[in-house]
Amino acid sequence: MPNETHGPEVLPVALATAATSRRGFLRTASLTALSAGALAACGKTPVAEAASEAATPPAGPPPVPLSPRAAADAMDAMHEKGIKSFPAKTEGKGNQILAPRIEKGVKIFDLTAKVVQWELEPGRKVEAWTFNGVVPAPQIRVREGDRVRINLRNDLPESTAIHFHGLEIPNDQDGVPYITQPPVKPGDSYVYEFIVPNAGSHMYHSHHNSAKQVGLGLLGAFIVEPKDKSSEPKVDVDYVLILNDGAHGFTLNGKSFPATEPIVAKLGQKVRIRYMNEGMMIHPMHLHGMHQTVIAKDGWPQPQPWKCDTLNIAPGERWDVVVNCNNPGTWAFHCHILPHAESDHGMFGMVTALIVQK
Amino acid sequence: MPNETHGPEVLPVALATAATSRRGFLRTASLTALSAGALAACGKTPVAEAASEAATPPAGPPPVPLSPRAAADAMDAMHEKGIKSFPAKTEGKGNQILAPRIEKGVKIFDLTAKVVQWELEPGRKVEAWTFNGVVPAPQIRVREGDRVRINLRNDLPESTAIHFHGLEIPNDQDGVPYITQPPVKPGDSYVYEFIVPNAGSHMYHSHHNSAKQVGLGLLGAFIVEPKDKSSEPKVDVDYVLILNDGAHGFTLNGKSFPATEPIVAKLGQKVRIRYMNEGMMIHPMHLHGMHQTVIAKDGWPQPQPWKCDTLNIAPGERWDVVVNCNNPGTWAFHCHILPHAESDHGMFGMVTALIVQK
Amino acid sequence: MPNETHGPEVLPVALATAATSRRGFLRTASLTALSAGALAACGKTPVAEAASEAATPPAGPPPVPLSPRAAADAMDAMHEKGIKSFPAKTEGKGNQILAPRIEKGVKIFDLTAKVVQWELEPGRKVEAWTFNGVVPAPQIRVREGDRVRINLRNDLPESTAIHFHGLEIPNDQDGVPYITQPPVKPGDSYVYEFIVPNAGSHMYHSHHNSAKQVGLGLLGAFIVEPKDKSSEPKVDVDYVLILNDGAHGFTLNGKSFPATEPIVAKLGQKVRIRYMNEGMMIHPMHLHGMHQTVIAKDGWPQPQPWKCDTLNIAPGERWDVVVNCNNPGTWAFHCHILPHAESDHGMFGMVTALIVQK
Repeated sequence: MPNETHGPEVLPVALATAATSRRGFLRTASLTALSAGALAACGKTPVAEAASEAATPPAGPPPVPLSPRAAADAMDAMHEKGIKSFPAKTEGKGNQILAPRIEKGVKIFDLTAKVVQWELEPGRKVEAWTFNGVVPAPQIRVREGDRVRINLRNDLPESTAIHFHGLEIPNDQDGVPYITQPPVKPGDSYVYEFIVPNAGSHMYHSHHNSAKQVGLGLLGAFIVEPKDKSSEPKVDVDYVLILNDGAHGFTLNGKSFPATEPIVAKLGQKVRIRYMNEGMMIHPMHLHGMHQTVIAKDGWPQPQPWKCDTLNIAPGERWDVVVNCNNPGTWAFHCHILPHAESDHGMFGMVTALIVQK
Repeated sequence: MPNETHGPEVLPVALATAATSRRGFLRTASLTALSAGALAACGKTPVAEAASEAATPPAGPPPVPLSPRAAADAMDAMHEKGIKSFPAKTEGKGNQILAPRIEKGVKIFDLTAKVVQWELEPGRKVEAWTFNGVVPAPQIRVREGDRVRINLRNDLPESTAIHFHGLEIPNDQDGVPYITQPPVKPGDSYVYEFIVPNAGSHMYHSHHNSAKQVGLGLLGAFIVEPKDKSSEPKVDVDYVLILNDGAHGFTLNGKSFPATEPIVAKLGQKVRIRYMNEGMMIHPMHLHGMHQTVIAKDGWPQPQPWKCDTLNIAPGERWDVVVNCNNPGTWAFHCHILPHAESDHGMFGMVTALIVQK
Repeated sequence: MPNETHGPEVLPVALATAATSRRGFLRTASLTALSAGALAACGKTPVAEAASEAATPPAGPPPVPLSPRAAADAMDAMHEKGIKSFPAKTEGKGNQILAPRIEKGVKIFDLTAKVVQWELEPGRKVEAWTFNGVVPAPQIRVREGDRVRINLRNDLPESTAIHFHGLEIPNDQDGVPYITQPPVKPGDSYVYEFIVPNAGSHMYHSHHNSAKQVGLGLLGAFIVEPKDKSSEPKVDVDYVLILNDGAHGFTLNGKSFPATEPIVAKLGQKVRIRYMNEGMMIHPMHLHGMHQTVIAKDGWPQPQPWKCDTLNIAPGERWDVVVNCNNPGTWAFHCHILPHAESDHGMFGMVTALIVQK
C-alpha cells in the first residue's frame, strides 16, 4: 500500500496543530493571510494557473497535460491556501454592538443608510448598501421594556424604511412604506420610537425594494434580553450568526470564507448561537464534532429543547441553539448545501469554524 | 436634518388611516383598484415608463437623466400604486366552500376539470387548469366519518385523476394512475367514494402529469372537521391559505398581490390559518406585528403548540397556526423569500395583509 | 356521461391487482422491465415518438395532428410503461450492509474510492465516484461503543477524505483536509480509527471538493445502534433512504424511478425509515395512505414523537420516522417537489412505493 498514513498519529497541517491554541491559530493565520488571501477560494483562479505554481510545466509548446497526481496537487494547493489563510483579514467588521446614547431614559440609536465599498474576502470589494457603513448593520441589543428611538438618515440613492422583524410593536412603527408610513426619501430622515415588547433574537432591515436592499446589506440583528432571565440558558459565548445569499454571494456576518470569523470557546464552555437568515434560500448549518441543542424559534422558546447537528434555517427565520463545547479542536462549521461552501478551488462562502480550546 | 418626520405622529397614507376600518379600507381600495391595477407590481412596466408619469422629462433629445430624488419618486410611485390598489378587484374567486348534494346520507361533490382564463391580478389573464373554473378549486369541507362521493368529469385535453393528499383512504381511491386506477381520459368521468377517515387540513389535486397540472391550478383544500371538537382551538376566523409558484407565478389562493385577499379580524379575535403549499419551492410565511402559534402539521396536532413569526412551508406540507389578534392595524403578511414578494416595481406575488380592526 | 367508471369496483391495472401480492407484483414488474425500461420516464423520448407507437399516424405528408384523445393516449402510454416496469432491474445495488472484518475486537471496514459506470435506470449509465463501486456506498452498521477502523484507499483521479457526519469523534478523525488531516492523494491510503460515541442515523461522505465528489456518489449511511435499545421503537423493517440530487439527477438510494426499490411490509408491521439528504435541495417526502411518526432528528430522539405525511428533509439532515402499516396496497411514496418526481413522460426520479401486503 503506497504512502499509507495512519490518521490518529499524524497531524502535519498548521491548522491542525494550532487547533487547540488560539494564539497559535491566529498567528498562523495572520502570517499566511496576506500571501494567500488573493488566491484563496474565491473561484476566480483557473486550475491551470495554480497548477503552474504547484508543478513546473515543461518549457515550450506543446504543453504536456498534468499527471493525475500533479493535477491533484495543484487543486489541493488551492484548498490549502484558502484554509491556511483563515481567518483572513479584511477591512470592516459588521454585527458589532452599537452603544446607545441615553436621553431621559430613552436608548437612542443613530443609523445612516449609505452606500460603501465592502471587503467580502481579501482583495474583493463590492458595493454594499449599509446602515453605518457595515454589513451586517450594527447589532442593537436592548432589554424587554426599554424605550428605544432609532434615528434613520437616508443617504442612499433610493427611498428606504426599517422594519423591526419579530418585534410586536405598534403598527405605525412597523416600517412598511405605504402601509404604515411614507417611504424615507433620499436625503431625508425618519424617527422610530417604541417600547420593546417581546424578548428574543430579532432583526431589523429595509422593507422597501427589499429584495434588492436587503440583498445588498441593509440588515442587522435586534436582540432583546428578557426582563426575567431565569429561563435563559447560562452561556459563556453569545454569538449572532447572520446568513445571507444576495448580491454578495454566500456570506456569514457579511464575509465570505476565509474572511469569516471563527467562534472561539474553551473546553467545557457553552456557546449560544443565534442564527438569522436574511437571504433568499435555506441554509442547513452543520456543525462538526458536537451537536446543537435548539432552544428558541424566532425569539420564542421551544416547548422542549431538541438536538441536531444540522439545522435548516429558512429566510426570515431565527433559531437559537446552545453548543456544549466538550470536544476540543477546530471544527468545520458550514452550510451543508455543499455548493454554498466549497468549489474545486477550495472552501468559500458559508464556512467558518468553532474552535474549542483545551 | 432636512425634512425630518417623526414616525408616531404621522400617518399620511390612505392605507394607514383606513387600517382599522374595514369599510374605509375597502372603499379606498376599490376607488383606486381600476386605475392602479394595470400598473401595479406586475413587473412589466419599465422604470423609465413609470418615471415619465411621475417626473416630466424635458422634451427633445438628448434626455436628461433623472435626479436621484426624481428617480426615487418614480420608483415609489409604482410601489404606492400597487399598495393603494390592494385588495384589487379581479374576476373569479377560488377556495370557496362547495356545498354538497346529499343523497342517502352521502355528501356528493361534482367536480369538472376544465381549462379557463383566470385573472391573476387586474388585467392579467392566464390559462388555468381548474376544477369547476376556479383556482384554487372549491374547498371541500366535511366531517370525520362522513361518506363522500366525488364525481369527476374531465374536460381537459389531457387525462387526469384526483389524489386526496393526507387522507388515509382505501388504496383504490388514492388517485394515482396506473398504480391505483386508470387515468381519466379527456371526455370521461370517474367516481371516488370513501368514508373520511382522519381529521385535519388536507388537499386534493391532480396526480397525473402533476408537475404541469397542479402548477396550472388543479388543486384545492380538503378540510376534515373532527368528530370530537374538544381539542380544537376556538377561533373566530378559520382561513385556508394555499401557496403556489407554478406557471402562474407566486400566488396566494390563486391571486397575486394586489389581487390577494386580506384576512380581517376584530381586536381580540383569534384567527386560524391553514397553510397549504401546492408549489415547488418553500415559502416561509412571515406575519408582522403578532406571532403565530403552530398547532398542527399535515392535519395532525403537534405534541405541544409552539410560537414563531415566520413559518417555513414546504411543498406538500400543511401547517395550522392560530394568531391572537391583539395588535390593531393593517399588518403585512408575506413570503420572506423577498423576490417572491417585492421587486423594484413594488410588492407583488405572495403578499397579503392581516387587518386587525379596533 | 361517456365511459363512466366507478372507482371502487374497477382495478384493471396490473399494478393495482398485484398490489397486495409481492410475488405477483415482482413478476409483473420483471416481465415488463426489459421492454419498457429504455423508454420509461427518462425524459428523453419526445411525445411524437411515443405517439407513433400508440396511435398509427396516416402515411405520407402532411401529417395530421393527433386528436386530443389520441394525444392523451400517447402520453398515458409513456406513464403506464414507466410504472409497469417498476421496480425495473438495473445493474448494481448500493446501501447494502458491509460486514466488517474483526481483528482484536476492532471492526474493520475496507473502502476503496473509485470511478465506475453506474446504471441509474435501465440502460442509462453514468460516471459515478464511489466507495467500493456502489452508490450509495456500503452501509456501515455498528454499535455504540464499538471500536472501528476504516481503511480508505483512494483510486480516484482527485484527492479525497472521509467525514463521519454526525459522529462526535476526536477532531483528528473528522476528515476535513487541511483542518484535521492532509488530503488523501490519488493512489494513497489513509486509516481512520475511533470508538463510536453516539447512536443514531449518521452518514459518511467525502469532505474534499465535496460539492462535486458527494454529488457524484461518495456517500453512505453510518448507522449506530444504541447500547441500550429500550427506547428504540420495535420495528419489522428498518430502511435507510438516501436522497440525492447531484450530477445523477434525482435519486433514491442511487437509482431513479422506475429503478428505485419498493419498501415491502406486511399488514400490521411497522417500518422505520431513516431519511438522509446528501443533495443540494430540500426534498419533502410524501407517503400516501398512512402517516409518518417522526422519532429522531440527526440521530437524536425528538422530545416527543409527532405525526405528518410529508416530511421536509434538508441537505445534511437525517430524520427517522416510523410507519404503522395499517392500510393495505401499493402506496406512492415520493418527493413532493413535483418536478423531482414526474414529467409529461411519466414518473421518474424520486419516486418509489411502500407496499403493504395483506
